[in-house]
Amino acid sequence: MKAVVTGAAGFIGSNLTDGLLRAGHAVIGVDNLSTGQLEFLSEARQSCRFQFVKADLFESDALDEVLPGADIVFHLAANADVRFGPQYPDRDLKQNTIVTARVLESMRRQGVSRIAFASTGSVYGQHHVIPTPEEAPFPVQTSLYAASKLAAEGIITAYAEAFGITAFIFRFVSILGERYTHGHVFDFYRQLRQNPETLRVLGDGTQRKSYLLVEDCVSAIQLAIEKSPELVNIYNLGTDEYCQVNDSIDWISERLGVSPRLSYSGGKNGWIGDNPFIFLSCNRIRKLGWTPKYTIREGIGRTLDYLVANPWVLERTQTDG
Amino acid sequence: MKAVVTGAAGFIGSNLTDGLLRAGHAVIGVDNLSTGQLEFLSEARQSCRFQFVKADLFESDALDEVLPGADIVFHLAANADVRFGPQYPDRDLKQNTIVTARVLESMRRQGVSRIAFASTGSVYGQHHVIPTPEEAPFPVQTSLYAASKLAAEGIITAYAEAFGITAFIFRFVSILGERYTHGHVFDFYRQLRQNPETLRVLGDGTQRKSYLLVEDCVSAIQLAIEKSPELVNIYNLGTDEYCQVNDSIDWISERLGVSPRLSYSGGKNGWIGDNPFIFLSCNRIRKLGWTPKYTIREGIGRTLDYLVANPWVLERTQTDG
Repeated sequence: MKAVVTGAAGFIGSNLTDGLLRAGHAVIGVDNLSTGQLEFLSEARQSCRFQFVKADLFESDALDEVLPGADIVFHLAANADVRFGPQYPDRDLKQNTIVTARVLESMRRQGVSRIAFASTGSVYGQHHVIPTPEEAPFPVQTSLYAASKLAAEGIITAYAEAFGITAFIFRFVSILGERYTHGHVFDFYRQLRQNPETLRVLGDGTQRKSYLLVEDCVSAIQLAIEKSPELVNIYNLGTDEYCQVNDSIDWISERLGVSPRLSYSGGKNGWIGDNPFIFLSCNRIRKLGWTPKYTIREGIGRTLDYLVANPWVLERTQTDG
Repeated sequence: MKAVVTGAAGFIGSNLTDGLLRAGHAVIGVDNLSTGQLEFLSEARQSCRFQFVKADLFESDALDEVLPGADIVFHLAANADVRFGPQYPDRDLKQNTIVTARVLESMRRQGVSRIAFASTGSVYGQHHVIPTPEEAPFPVQTSLYAASKLAAEGIITAYAEAFGITAFIFRFVSILGERYTHGHVFDFYRQLRQNPETLRVLGDGTQRKSYLLVEDCVSAIQLAIEKSPELVNIYNLGTDEYCQVNDSIDWISERLGVSPRLSYSGGKNGWIGDNPFIFLSCNRIRKLGWTPKYTIREGIGRTLDYLVANPWVLERTQTDG
């Protein structure tokens, strides 16, 4: 299989690229390197089946040049940080919705008929059905990030109907693991590395969160594109457990051997548009035979191990946009 | 109340403008006149409380100049023809999704805190729950038009959460009545006016459809913005009945006194992305005290009366572009 991965130098994109290469596929990775890191592709670039193309999908039609002959596009390029929507209201629209429309148009022009898309469990908003299945009642969007992903989902499925493009849509919980570059474990570790005495926590720490290790996420995606029978295939991806931010703080502190004083910003939500509780029903993907191998606690541990071993990641990447 | 109506020279926009003026409100109507007709505003333009601004909301920031002091924006400007999405794949995205985001940004800059939005029952796709309530299971999009409207809904509700903008979202069935300029009654009348002997029908004629007269639609919108208590208020708008395209053909033929030979294109769907059956549960808006005054048959009759009395509408307006 010849696959094109957009956002290939990103956290999930680079892990997926490695997974596809290990499975024997050829991969063209595309990234504008705005938040992606070429170092994340150092393993991939040793493979003769990998090619990297630096391109911005919002600005250029570069995808038209790499798509001919591809069997599938894994569209992971996105603005992935949900928190800063209100400060840059058009960023999610441009980077997530419009870029997805442009990817689909390139696919149509070049005759590529399958797309796998990284959506988000945030599309369920503050849902009253917990755990939330894919067919939960029509949700109301609560963040520009989720709205932009939902919009992209809608365009993808309309392309499926209009042009026969097969769609695989994955609604993730938060993903953790190697090459993780934003989110609360990252922020907490960075804070504790600078000052192990104090930890500032957004919200009141009781926010319940679901996490999935990126290795499990990649295996689910690979299984789903092999085994899904429909024109439109939508899957929640998560574990069957959740934790509170306070649990996570305990695990992180224990792993690092620190006992910080906690300073809570207060309130139920960490930031505007934050969901106090995302917990997805993953029965649909489990019916295909997928099971996550790691618990949330193990995922947080592996994430910390990676960050400790790769201090350049903290120095290089930004969390404020 | 000072209201801004985008798409004010369109079918629903002009009827809403008239309704708001009759209720004593001041209205600034904005339209790029790409499909809108200034004649539709001839009654409105006799009012000293009405002002018309010609502007294209995709190309310009003209809305920034008309919004200061406005209490609400009725955002009806859109590409309204669902059928031609596959031929112009970026039109719905630009005219419906991106323009809505631009309207919201103007509102935020100018401090306008309420938006009423014309969405569509098509966002439910080919839903298995009939009649379909607002909280139906998470639907899959089947047209670029509906996907673009769903995307706009998502951005609007994210703005509600992020910026406290109150949202009124109306998911319409097809609307009929005075100034109606596209859809099957329009197409059938135009065909029969040219040649009463033959009528070409898309699909097999058994497609079931719901219709609402524009007068009822406008009264529902006006009631909803007065009585809705939430930050985000979403309403289906339709009647409690539906008809088949074949019923409609009978009523139109009877009204016009013709007996055309019917030529069906065949198939269950009229066009790619067509929904074979849209029938909405409207309990939520009915709980506010709204009831449609007209049946579908009466609505089709009034639509024909209007088209017969205004032949210029058929000559001026296009259905293919």
